[in-house]
Amino acid sequence: MRNTARRAATLALMATAVCGPLTGTAHAAPSGLYAPSALVLTVGHGDSAATATPARAVTLTCAPTSSGTHPAAASACAELRAVDGDLDALESVLGSRGDVLCTKEYDPVVVTVDGVWRGQRVSYERTFANECVKGSLGSSLFTF
Amino acid sequence: MRNTARRAATLALMATAVCGPLTGTAHAAPSGLYAPSALVLTVGHGDSAATATPARAVTLTCAPTSSGTHPAAASACAELRAVDGDLDALESVLGSRGDVLCTKEYDPVVVTVDGVWRGQRVSYERTFANECVKGSLGSSLFTF
Repeated sequence: MRNTARRAATLALMATAVCGPLTGTAHAAPSGLYAPSALVLTVGHGDSAATATPARAVTLTCAPTSSGTHPAAASACAELRAVDGDLDALESVLGSRGDVLCTKEYDPVVVTVDGVWRGQRVSYERTFANECVKGSLGSSLFTF
Repeated sequence: MRNTARRAATLALMATAVCGPLTGTAHAAPSGLYAPSALVLTVGHGDSAATATPARAVTLTCAPTSSGTHPAAASACAELRAVDGDLDALESVLGSRGDVLCTKEYDPVVVTVDGVWRGQRVSYERTFANECVKGSLGSSLFTF
């Protein structure tokens, strides 16, 4: 019996190790054991979210697995976890891409993040001077 | 050279077809063919969203297909289409369930809907006197 249990545990560990990277998901405890996280991200051309029409909008869920229409849900969730949902800290924690040089052209792009992160409401808005400046952030969260 | 290029293109297509479902991302049609729709819905106990901690939060996308962590994404999207995203019209269009009788106990439940519906920003909040009253709405949008 003890051996069987040990073998089952080993198999479970192996399954996690094998399936984890394939699905790109973060394995969490069963439902109810974690606070909800569900976000909508938008990007639009303009100065502020109030005036800019959203050109694209994606969903992102990070628990129990990384999912949503965000094209890089797994890395976006990893970044959110790295800053514990504090989007203002994104740049200081992740840094910027040194290989990107942008012009100073003003053609503003506004991104928003709304919803819930680990049980706390999130409402974030940030305007970049142009698309290149947005892309220079070393983050995949805003790349959609 | 041409053959190599063709083979590379075929391989890329195969990779997309094989990896798509594994990564759990919804592949959208080329951007620009339809206005984006992506929503986050929350439910919490309290008078207003400002004070209530979200107990549950789900995502909902209705184009190109109904998806998200909402447990009844297809019917929730059908309801949103029926009222063209006008959440205030939900009750008059869908009606209430006649078979549900609720007490007048005041134990408020607040639901929110945030994000984008067909390219327009949505920010909706509604408080029900109690869980039963919320359930008496003939709608699966708020049932999660």
